[in-house]
Amino acid sequence: MVEDTIAAVATALGEGSIAVVRVSGPEAVDTVAGVFRSKTDLRSAASHTVHYGWIRDPENEQVLDEVLVTVMRAPRSFTAEDVVEVSTHGGMVAVKSVLGLLLRRGIRMAEPGEFTKRAFLNGRIDLAQAEAVIDLIRSKSERAFQLARKQAEGSVSKRIVPIRSSLIELLAHVEVNIDYPEHDVAEVTAGVIRDTCQSALKQIEELLRTADEGKILREGIVTAIVGRPNAGKSSLLNALARENKAIVTDIPGTTRDIVEETISLGGIPLRLLDTAGIRETSDVVERIGVERSRTALNEADLILLVINRNEPLHEDERELLRQLKDRSTIVVVNKIDLPAMLDLEEVKKDYANDRIVFLSAKEGIGLDELEKAVSQIFFSGSVEAADLTYVSNARHIALLHRAKSSLEDAVRAADEGIPVDLTQIDIASAWESLGEILGDAAGESLLDEIFSKFCLGK
Amino acid sequence: MVEDTIAAVATALGEGSIAVVRVSGPEAVDTVAGVFRSKTDLRSAASHTVHYGWIRDPENEQVLDEVLVTVMRAPRSFTAEDVVEVSTHGGMVAVKSVLGLLLRRGIRMAEPGEFTKRAFLNGRIDLAQAEAVIDLIRSKSERAFQLARKQAEGSVSKRIVPIRSSLIELLAHVEVNIDYPEHDVAEVTAGVIRDTCQSALKQIEELLRTADEGKILREGIVTAIVGRPNAGKSSLLNALARENKAIVTDIPGTTRDIVEETISLGGIPLRLLDTAGIRETSDVVERIGVERSRTALNEADLILLVINRNEPLHEDERELLRQLKDRSTIVVVNKIDLPAMLDLEEVKKDYANDRIVFLSAKEGIGLDELEKAVSQIFFSGSVEAADLTYVSNARHIALLHRAKSSLEDAVRAADEGIPVDLTQIDIASAWESLGEILGDAAGESLLDEIFSKFCLGK
Repeated sequence: MVEDTIAAVATALGEGSIAVVRVSGPEAVDTVAGVFRSKTDLRSAASHTVHYGWIRDPENEQVLDEVLVTVMRAPRSFTAEDVVEVSTHGGMVAVKSVLGLLLRRGIRMAEPGEFTKRAFLNGRIDLAQAEAVIDLIRSKSERAFQLARKQAEGSVSKRIVPIRSSLIELLAHVEVNIDYPEHDVAEVTAGVIRDTCQSALKQIEELLRTADEGKILREGIVTAIVGRPNAGKSSLLNALARENKAIVTDIPGTTRDIVEETISLGGIPLRLLDTAGIRETSDVVERIGVERSRTALNEADLILLVINRNEPLHEDERELLRQLKDRSTIVVVNKIDLPAMLDLEEVKKDYANDRIVFLSAKEGIGLDELEKAVSQIFFSGSVEAADLTYVSNARHIALLHRAKSSLEDAVRAADEGIPVDLTQIDIASAWESLGEILGDAAGESLLDEIFSKFCLGK
Repeated sequence: MVEDTIAAVATALGEGSIAVVRVSGPEAVDTVAGVFRSKTDLRSAASHTVHYGWIRDPENEQVLDEVLVTVMRAPRSFTAEDVVEVSTHGGMVAVKSVLGLLLRRGIRMAEPGEFTKRAFLNGRIDLAQAEAVIDLIRSKSERAFQLARKQAEGSVSKRIVPIRSSLIELLAHVEVNIDYPEHDVAEVTAGVIRDTCQSALKQIEELLRTADEGKILREGIVTAIVGRPNAGKSSLLNALARENKAIVTDIPGTTRDIVEETISLGGIPLRLLDTAGIRETSDVVERIGVERSRTALNEADLILLVINRNEPLHEDERELLRQLKDRSTIVVVNKIDLPAMLDLEEVKKDYANDRIVFLSAKEGIGLDELEKAVSQIFFSGSVEAADLTYVSNARHIALLHRAKSSLEDAVRAADEGIPVDLTQIDIASAWESLGEILGDAAGESLLDEIFSKFCLGK
């Protein structure tokens, strides 16, 4: 497949010691060689070698930067094409000017995810692996990263491939039955269909059981920190994030915008939303903030209701406790470094469960207890199953559900003695759904949608 | 010199496709080899080769990431030591866990600038070159980057070295004169001292003449955008920055904090400060903002006074025009897309010069004119002298001034017939000052101070 040559910045933008421009495609080596002044000629350089020199604009002889250039030849590269990486000085200027020069020399700016898309199109990885690459980069916790890394190396694919093989064998069996009806193997076939489909179903259900935890590990638990003004919500966010992200003052109503921060609590990623204290207010901007708090509260997976132990329970808090009865809520009794003015029995009266944690956000006391409580809600207390294959991608989950439903139809049909040539359609459909996870015969629009979520340079 | 082995993240932190951990020192290759699972053994790898594999923690056999490892052997590396670069997946998790593993295996976290410091201590570059490396990374404009790049490659050093050579020859001449007074070459020597010192002086003065522009190119022009509330200051910032950095509303007093943004205006870096509109106000937070505006105004190199053409001149603006008479000010008459209500003659009455630019920040009209006006103030209209060697580092400038003053003393002494053995001290002192620029005999405390300004990983 003849492709054009693409380039993009592969490192994060910002202040660093080095930055890297990645180039991939048939013209990668030639084009970079044309702007590279060095002792060696890149065109004859061996694969996986690094060369020191300068990038120079041939138009005006201007030197842009002192660089290291790495050559990786097809198919031994990320894209399975010729890849050249130019390592420039860090900061924004050098990398931008080198990329700009390459674009002027006929190389095309890569679309988001286009390097990974090429690795897929060139058959080096399947679609499920390609999709995990973006999760690798976006992951905010060690666990999410390892989940994505295993998927990128094919952990999900490895589970899907044998299920598909068993289904294609079954389809061949059915085909024989249709082509040679005189053998009268219909009874046998119904049994084989039932057994094979049920075995496949069992494996799919196992994968789907990991989906909830997988999704949480990948995307994080959306966690709204709510409570009355000055209960210590921003202090809790800062204590958990271990930095002064949100402005904290003694003035109730300090927070107006929702302050968001992703943290890793015992390996579990939480997307914390610090919200405006919920109260009646005449301040226009604060009132918008309170509205947003209520929206965040409704959409969150987990709610941390912060109550100030240094004050008696307020009517607004009673109201919140009643509202949150059926939600995944942890009551955080804050300011335990100050005298207790809160009657705990009152809290319990309006709160159905015993998920109450005592802490002092200001002093950093009790955060471990909060970690345990979160883990208990989402992982039945255990998040240690590191070797499990998790399915975490929403597209994969949907396709697994679709395959599951097709196979259930096939089993039902077999049970009811429906002719095998009708059942065949269900089995083929399950086989196709599973294939879509791996990217078999994926259309251009699906690929566009998937890879457009990537960052540039990957 | 036996050194320990150091490591740090070399790429910017954030979302990118790849990130790089840089390791330097005698144990670099061995330590990385101990955690690298691959087809090749790094220990026997040739210099400047790249190897594909996995980083694995030998303690628990856990794979941390799929990586590319580059080996560069001493002295052909940035530090002139053995250097290994581990290219991990982007994002925060992979690079942090790989760095963490290396630190557990006995490698020390590098201090800021320590890689560059080693390049200097190992004699690969001089101190002036090392100092330019940090400017490379920090530079916000093409011109500042090229200035730093030339200094990093020794442009300043190349000018300093011949001056020092001429001074050391002169010192030798003086020495002969002292040792063999019977030759009675005193007269000759006075003439030689005068000529050599004046030639050196001329060269130093040439370098110092570039200092103002060099400093501006390096550090940017601190530019305060001031004016009445709702004159369009934030819109001007956004138009120049080509993004919506500052919140813009029709409500006067929207900006409270100072919003800062560095932009490149025709190659000249401007550090723009968008300030709160200056007015009497009863809002506590806004009043703090107005105070900060006045401070920013006093400290700026350049002031853009934004006046709304859609309103008559206000007394506060008249006051500002009078205050800014002797400062580098450009009056920006904004909102030319709206009907003119401003009497320009009134502006000119209180404003000494003709630096008035008409534009519409909202529509992006007239920004070129502003660029020209800025260039005229700071570069006498020309910033095109790309081949000039600029001195831009404050330490270098101070040392050049010191050398200059010593040489002036020497010339005066020679003119006045003061014995050459006394003049000798001045010449030696100039020679030493110039040597300090290159890092000759630089003490540990000076080095610490210089390299602590670096970012990690360089």
